[in-house]
Amino acid sequence: MNYYVLSLFPEIIENSLNASITGRAIEKEIITLTSVDIRDFSDNKHMKVDDYPYGGGAGLVIKPTCVYDAYLHTISLIKNKKKPRVVYMTPQGSVFNQKKAVDFAKEEDLIILCGHYEGIDERVLETIVTDYVSIGDYVLTGGEIASVIVMDAVSRLVPGVLGNSESAFTDTFSDGLLEYPQYTRPEEFLGMKVPEVLRSGHHGNVEKWRHEQKLIRTRKNRPDLYEKYIMLHPEEELKD
Amino acid sequence: MNYYVLSLFPEIIENSLNASITGRAIEKEIITLTSVDIRDFSDNKHMKVDDYPYGGGAGLVIKPTCVYDAYLHTISLIKNKKKPRVVYMTPQGSVFNQKKAVDFAKEEDLIILCGHYEGIDERVLETIVTDYVSIGDYVLTGGEIASVIVMDAVSRLVPGVLGNSESAFTDTFSDGLLEYPQYTRPEEFLGMKVPEVLRSGHHGNVEKWRHEQKLIRTRKNRPDLYEKYIMLHPEEELKD
Repeated sequence: MNYYVLSLFPEIIENSLNASITGRAIEKEIITLTSVDIRDFSDNKHMKVDDYPYGGGAGLVIKPTCVYDAYLHTISLIKNKKKPRVVYMTPQGSVFNQKKAVDFAKEEDLIILCGHYEGIDERVLETIVTDYVSIGDYVLTGGEIASVIVMDAVSRLVPGVLGNSESAFTDTFSDGLLEYPQYTRPEEFLGMKVPEVLRSGHHGNVEKWRHEQKLIRTRKNRPDLYEKYIMLHPEEELKD
Repeated sequence: MNYYVLSLFPEIIENSLNASITGRAIEKEIITLTSVDIRDFSDNKHMKVDDYPYGGGAGLVIKPTCVYDAYLHTISLIKNKKKPRVVYMTPQGSVFNQKKAVDFAKEEDLIILCGHYEGIDERVLETIVTDYVSIGDYVLTGGEIASVIVMDAVSRLVPGVLGNSESAFTDTFSDGLLEYPQYTRPEEFLGMKVPEVLRSGHHGNVEKWRHEQKLIRTRKNRPDLYEKYIMLHPEEELKD
């Protein structure tokens, strides 16, 4: 998986992605990151990339020409003949989820375009963008950290990125329910004991307890997910 | 606004938050960031903070004692007498949104706890956590970058963090609709012209066009938001 990220703040992306598990995957060359600074494609001597919006209003808008030239440069770096998907991080997009992460993880090359608070001229977006993606219903100072979220969620699905013990760890959302609670040593903490069933060594009872906890927790924290699950598994509806 | 972030990878948080607008706010001391390394509160010589889960299963679980000691240390740093909210970043939480960002922005101190892939012992969470927060329905390699998302969305709502031109910029979600498209110079790009109405200088027509574009875009990209909006403003429903 090769990421090409076009932004005005490449250092945010490099710093964030070079840490922890994704950083290790970059070192091992399982994933690569090429960050392209849109400012390098400014067409004036002040290195400005934005200008006033047509029709008035506050803020500045990033010029289509700079973004398009950064895009053409990026395309020239990609050996693959297939035209890569171009993901634009924007609150205007459809909301990112695990299904979309799985979908992106199938690509070989992924171009990610990050705006900053200003927004980008619509015409270049219409020309190059294939996927408009929002990571959630909140406003950020820029698209850079949102792109890191997408790359993190996608990277951990790329074979070889997670170690054995990590990938074996059951995922939330894989069955549509939230995870069960976890306990480790010490057996007693501030007077609270680990639930007896987990200490019993009875595998069947542990499984049963954990599944019930998933249902209880999902109903409490995410009634939307609980309802979807119960539609598919009506026999598992909680009684109380 | 003072953030205290408890995690196993403080460098991810520091690197990300010290950039761009939030970095400038830290320099100006409008917001502060104290990162606490949970590993410093390990109780054994190998600096281990995790152990096998009771009841079996893959992965390791962070011990309640280490997290609790890191929490007590953090509390000792906070001068405010009011007990601060403790936000735990977890896919098990309720989904973060702009309303929650506004809510958090009212706090003076905010403690954020980040797990990594393993999860944290349930008993310490029950003891200290006030808010379980997920940034979206996808799985990340850790809670660190999720905490950066929350701090970014919250920080930009703290008075003085955004400059005038930035804060004046209309926000997506403030009226429940997505933003209208933006255009800037040049007037013609790859044969595409800026829509005539935006070049007309007729303020009323510009406003009308932009509002219609918001409705069109919201219906196309986020039918869920469009339906909510039309319930409240039935007279604005698009005709075609």
